[in-house]
Amino acid sequence: MISINDQFDKIDEYFSPKVVGEVNDVYIKIAKIKGDKIPWHNHKSEDEMFYIIDGELLFEDAVEGKFVMRKGDMHIVRRGVDHKVSATSECRIMLVENKKTAHTGDVDSDITKSINQQLK
Amino acid sequence: MISINDQFDKIDEYFSPKVVGEVNDVYIKIAKIKGDKIPWHNHKSEDEMFYIIDGELLFEDAVEGKFVMRKGDMHIVRRGVDHKVSATSECRIMLVENKKTAHTGDVDSDITKSINQQLK
Repeated sequence: MISINDQFDKIDEYFSPKVVGEVNDVYIKIAKIKGDKIPWHNHKSEDEMFYIIDGELLFEDAVEGKFVMRKGDMHIVRRGVDHKVSATSECRIMLVENKKTAHTGDVDSDITKSINQQLK
Repeated sequence: MISINDQFDKIDEYFSPKVVGEVNDVYIKIAKIKGDKIPWHNHKSEDEMFYIIDGELLFEDAVEGKFVMRKGDMHIVRRGVDHKVSATSECRIMLVENKKTAHTGDVDSDITKSINQQLK
């Protein structure tokens, strides 16, 4: 058993997903988001689940538009759908992603992390 | 986007997982647990993730023993590992399971629900 809050304490960088669990072919990840550095991107063959642990996340989704997610909200981005997220104050999120999902899709940006970096 | 709390409001039965999302080959489910009706069981070929949204869950795991999970705790039961959960007061959990996972494994018990019942 692990405490997700303890895992958040180990994260000292925004936009840097951390793998906290492995369930079949998916990774459970957590990340702290603050600011607007994530580029528009999509994941061609994989859905991605966002769940808000704490704070507010501004979600921009090419299909569903622009909306604010709060603690306890969940959104699943379907494969191929362009999206980006940002936050004014620190927002803590949980992600469920296929193991092979690149977190900024094919877009290589300042904040892009390899899966090995996410596994640290 | 959905609110997990709104989804919990739609559940009027304990031990009855409800599918709230589909991400690649896994289902995201939620359930309310109160009491001790879940039999010992395992999932031969699938890992299962438990995350506590609210309340306390008594976890019994053939490998890791007996422990209490609280809000924000996560535990992943590996395939083949016998386990059971119970709760004194209502506990709200999120599950990440392979789409083909039977929630009480091969054990058919009073509280066993088919995947069609979980999709309602």
